[in-house]
Amino acid sequence: MSKLTDVPKRILIGRALRSDKLGETLLPKRIALPVFASDPLSSVAYAPGEVLLVLSVAGVSAYHFSPWIAVAVVVLMFTVVASYRQNVHAYPSGGGDYEVANTNLGPKAGLTVASALLVDYVLTVAVSISSGVENLGSAIPFVVEHKTFCAIAMIVLLTVMNLRGVKESGKLFAIPTYIFVVGVFAMILWGAFRGLVMGDAMKAPTADYTIHAEQGGLAGFALVFLLLRAFSSGCAALTGVEAISNGVPAFRKPKSKNAATTLALMGGLAVTMFCGIIVLAMTTGVKMAEKPATDLLHNGQPVGAGYTQNPVISQVAAAVFGDGTAPFVILAAATALVLFLAANTAYNGFPLLGSILAQDRYLPRQLHTRGDRLAFSNGIVLLAGAAVILVYIYGADSTRLIQLYIVGVFVSFTLSQIGMVRHWNRHLTTENDPAKRRRMHRSRAINAFGATFTGLVLVVVLLTKFSHGAWVALLGMVIFYVTMTAIRKHYDRVADEIAAADSPDDEVARPSRVHSIVLVSKVHKPTLRALNYAKLMRSDSLEAVSVDVDQAETKALREEWERRGIEVPLKVLASPYREITRPFIEYVKSLRKESPRDAVSVFIPEYVVGHWYEHLLHNQSALRLKGRLLFTPGVMVTSVPWQLDSSEAAKVRARKRAEWNAPGSVRRGPVAAPKKEKAATKK
Amino acid sequence: MSKLTDVPKRILIGRALRSDKLGETLLPKRIALPVFASDPLSSVAYAPGEVLLVLSVAGVSAYHFSPWIAVAVVVLMFTVVASYRQNVHAYPSGGGDYEVANTNLGPKAGLTVASALLVDYVLTVAVSISSGVENLGSAIPFVVEHKTFCAIAMIVLLTVMNLRGVKESGKLFAIPTYIFVVGVFAMILWGAFRGLVMGDAMKAPTADYTIHAEQGGLAGFALVFLLLRAFSSGCAALTGVEAISNGVPAFRKPKSKNAATTLALMGGLAVTMFCGIIVLAMTTGVKMAEKPATDLLHNGQPVGAGYTQNPVISQVAAAVFGDGTAPFVILAAATALVLFLAANTAYNGFPLLGSILAQDRYLPRQLHTRGDRLAFSNGIVLLAGAAVILVYIYGADSTRLIQLYIVGVFVSFTLSQIGMVRHWNRHLTTENDPAKRRRMHRSRAINAFGATFTGLVLVVVLLTKFSHGAWVALLGMVIFYVTMTAIRKHYDRVADEIAAADSPDDEVARPSRVHSIVLVSKVHKPTLRALNYAKLMRSDSLEAVSVDVDQAETKALREEWERRGIEVPLKVLASPYREITRPFIEYVKSLRKESPRDAVSVFIPEYVVGHWYEHLLHNQSALRLKGRLLFTPGVMVTSVPWQLDSSEAAKVRARKRAEWNAPGSVRRGPVAAPKKEKAATKK
Repeated sequence: MSKLTDVPKRILIGRALRSDKLGETLLPKRIALPVFASDPLSSVAYAPGEVLLVLSVAGVSAYHFSPWIAVAVVVLMFTVVASYRQNVHAYPSGGGDYEVANTNLGPKAGLTVASALLVDYVLTVAVSISSGVENLGSAIPFVVEHKTFCAIAMIVLLTVMNLRGVKESGKLFAIPTYIFVVGVFAMILWGAFRGLVMGDAMKAPTADYTIHAEQGGLAGFALVFLLLRAFSSGCAALTGVEAISNGVPAFRKPKSKNAATTLALMGGLAVTMFCGIIVLAMTTGVKMAEKPATDLLHNGQPVGAGYTQNPVISQVAAAVFGDGTAPFVILAAATALVLFLAANTAYNGFPLLGSILAQDRYLPRQLHTRGDRLAFSNGIVLLAGAAVILVYIYGADSTRLIQLYIVGVFVSFTLSQIGMVRHWNRHLTTENDPAKRRRMHRSRAINAFGATFTGLVLVVVLLTKFSHGAWVALLGMVIFYVTMTAIRKHYDRVADEIAAADSPDDEVARPSRVHSIVLVSKVHKPTLRALNYAKLMRSDSLEAVSVDVDQAETKALREEWERRGIEVPLKVLASPYREITRPFIEYVKSLRKESPRDAVSVFIPEYVVGHWYEHLLHNQSALRLKGRLLFTPGVMVTSVPWQLDSSEAAKVRARKRAEWNAPGSVRRGPVAAPKKEKAATKK
Repeated sequence: MSKLTDVPKRILIGRALRSDKLGETLLPKRIALPVFASDPLSSVAYAPGEVLLVLSVAGVSAYHFSPWIAVAVVVLMFTVVASYRQNVHAYPSGGGDYEVANTNLGPKAGLTVASALLVDYVLTVAVSISSGVENLGSAIPFVVEHKTFCAIAMIVLLTVMNLRGVKESGKLFAIPTYIFVVGVFAMILWGAFRGLVMGDAMKAPTADYTIHAEQGGLAGFALVFLLLRAFSSGCAALTGVEAISNGVPAFRKPKSKNAATTLALMGGLAVTMFCGIIVLAMTTGVKMAEKPATDLLHNGQPVGAGYTQNPVISQVAAAVFGDGTAPFVILAAATALVLFLAANTAYNGFPLLGSILAQDRYLPRQLHTRGDRLAFSNGIVLLAGAAVILVYIYGADSTRLIQLYIVGVFVSFTLSQIGMVRHWNRHLTTENDPAKRRRMHRSRAINAFGATFTGLVLVVVLLTKFSHGAWVALLGMVIFYVTMTAIRKHYDRVADEIAAADSPDDEVARPSRVHSIVLVSKVHKPTLRALNYAKLMRSDSLEAVSVDVDQAETKALREEWERRGIEVPLKVLASPYREITRPFIEYVKSLRKESPRDAVSVFIPEYVVGHWYEHLLHNQSALRLKGRLLFTPGVMVTSVPWQLDSSEAAKVRARKRAEWNAPGSVRRGPVAAPKKEKAATKK
């Protein structure tokens, strides 16, 4: 089976993995952390900067509020992590927020969460790619000069990779994520060492700049509102935290415990990095303005439209390591890479959520099964298309895109935590063990606090960001919600329509006999095979039928039939207007009219071809006929395939497609092993 | 069957015609003439002008050659008509030039003729529409100011009409064609009356203009070449003459005689109109220049780029009737209309030729049958697309487009006439009746003269027009030729591959038994129907198979199965990765491995839906599975349809499609009535 050309590939990506060995790829914590945490960890690359940006509206003096905002974000992060640790234990099946809301608050809440998550996947791609391009641009100016183009090219690249079925590999995720984490920690520690021990005065590139306060001397309500807006932006650091609760089945055993530990680890890393970067930004005098062209001043002059405002993490790195030094470049590259990986998680998360929604019939059924390439492809293209549109409209500006983000995250946080409170309430009514009750009370308290806090944040986000762009995200949620409701309604209607009545006999008029017809055009191998197969099915009567579209051919057919002594009777249908479908359909209808209780079985020899253009040359009349026959009651249609030599190519392609790895398979984990008795397959 | 809403339609287009009554619509000569002659008759709207345009290169003085050129065209027209009268008698089956060349000169000559005719259909659309727009523009300036746009809009309109299946109606063709013919004759007679009897000095709008000779004082070879070019352009009057030879089956009996008479009538009308217009143009002093902007002078000054050069027929009408008078406007409208009808003939001719080529397997087989909407639609879109591209590139300038035209016509004229000479030679070797031999000798002489003359014209056209644009037409012919050769090769290769050996047994390993499998996901009506049908086909064994993609659903299925006491055994295949296709295919393969001589019959319940989006929601997994099963040897796949309520809409659409009238059905005529014994269909 293995070919010579496989060798270099094997060397590059390791031993080929049979897809039914997927079960062995359960994730240890050290791999699960980077797989699930690249999204939340990468957000420290933009969240601190967003806080400073908002504060700058009130002038540099407002920057001194930033540590307090950082504290609020940290408290929120701890709350959310603590809450989700409860989720992970209570719902180990990987349904995540959708399952929690659906089970405890009903299908409407579940669908709202699902819509919010779908919108967030789009925004994860748009924001992460844009921010990644900005970070890469701090080292490579070309990239930032052609920001929109580079961002869209990156989305296209990720899309192609995922369409081709690049397997999500834990190791692939691990290396850049760990380099990024180690790099940021090294920066924080080295910065602390230089500042506190050596007493160096580290200066960010913008340390000497000043900011023109758009709204100087803010006080009272206006100031509170600004601080709340800054806090909302800081909450971008929390995006992606819920990912682990969707991925519990992918963990090694004990699954829930390992997932909870990974969640805690991730939360700890994220807050440390977030705070460290904020403090270093303060120390090194980073200045960021919402409208740098006019509000950022150098020697008293606005810097103008040509100025590129580098991300806070890169300015801090320049101050600590020195601009353009090796550690600076490595950190910038690792930051960009981890942001691109974060975007890739959306490509993996989408089919995961899609398969769960499909199971509940909110999306086409085939999304539920794995490896259905066509279905996943449509989803991936939808995701990428929406992200490209957003990136194009917002000019790949991560700051403007972040205004749309976060709403969805907090919708699902809040509903999920409310659902968890209900969950504990329900369990408390039946649980009698005092130790368990105590634990449940504790969990309920945590989730209740989480629900209150995240709900509050959701209100703050809506209030402070609605007009800044959050309405776009809400509109997207409504579109998803309406579409999925419509699909579910359709499935429900069909299910009612086809539901079997209780008595097995009275609903489907059972035909008593079956009359078989083989469609014949010429005597050749496919026809002979179809005749042989039709004979095997011992129906009550069997005849061959040909439509006379060409007199010479029909004559030749009759003669050949006689010469070979084929014992199946041959009927020729007249067709004065060279049609095939109409005379055939009318003949079948006349048979049905004669004996309405009989079924008709039509055997059609079908060519299996290898190339798309061959489809134009073969089978067309037969397929058209089949399409019409399906509308005729009491008819079944049997394709008897004949594989042309050229079909070999298509067969190989089909096998490849079957071995295609759906994105998200690693983080989805295998289905819980089926019980023995069910798995039994007769040899 | 008839609905209230049908009434207005009935009033407008007459009693609905059942398509199997098509045989009654055989054409009487008075209707056949306009149906087949709108193309050749309409060409007198541009051919005379083209002659004057070419002559103008040598200055107005060269105009005095124009009657001689007209004489040459008339002689050629008589020759071609006389030749084709022989074709019509010898080949009444409607194969036309293609059949004649194919039968007598071999398939390569036949294919060359076919390629030439296909290119000419494209050019008929492009030239006729462009010229129609120019004629309409002489009455409505807006049209000529937005020439390209109007021409493309007109092509789109014709395409939509033909795609929707507007029936080619003899009466529809008759009215404008007769108005046009009567109008032109009235113009000629009234012009002659005014000029000869009343002695009026009729003056064309351009009578006072002069022409700057691009190549003044031409003599010798250069002059001869120019005259030959002018003659080539005048030959545009002959395009479409061959149409009748393709349409013999559409005539009333005696078919050949009626067709020959119609041909003669058409030739007579065309030459009279052609000569009349040339003479009137001379008399009224029409001036036309190849590059009017610089070479046409008014009061010694070039008229400039803003000048619109009206067609010669409209200038003559302005002189005879007066510009803007009612007869002038009516004639301009009738001219435009008849040109649009001429373009429409290409939409009818294409499927006609396509069906003949398909019969010889140069084009996809399904084109041979009638009313295959999809196949015809592709052809119509191809035709229209190519015409739109030409119109766009050449700015809807009929003069420039005519340079591409004619080559193809004369390729098929020449090859067809050579073929006819061979035809008579062959028949003369076996014919003994002296009277018949005399007639054959006479026919052969006519065809030999026709072949020589048209061959000469072809050489002249190629020499004088190759660099002016004829190379584009030749390139188009090569593309058609190569494509059709490739299709034929493919069909031949497949025919060899599937040819049945002489002994019926040794080629297809006859399976001995058949094992039936019903694919089951839930117990509902479609499943129960599939089970019932599978039971009817008394195969050697029968089982139901379900793939366990969801444990809860599988459990419910097992319970329901037991509760209902369904006697067919249910097997559940394990699928740890939620796939359907792979476990099923592997199970089928394992059955085949166990008993390689057995066949496997797979029954799949299939939903019949009404809307395209429902396809996304149903059947996808089953269709994917079926696609893979077709590659598995020894398997047949039976679809057991279940018509959802919504399928009613699709059924109605399918019936409408079946009743769709393929373009060209009137001029193709019905198939020769099948002999009694063959038409017999068992009641």
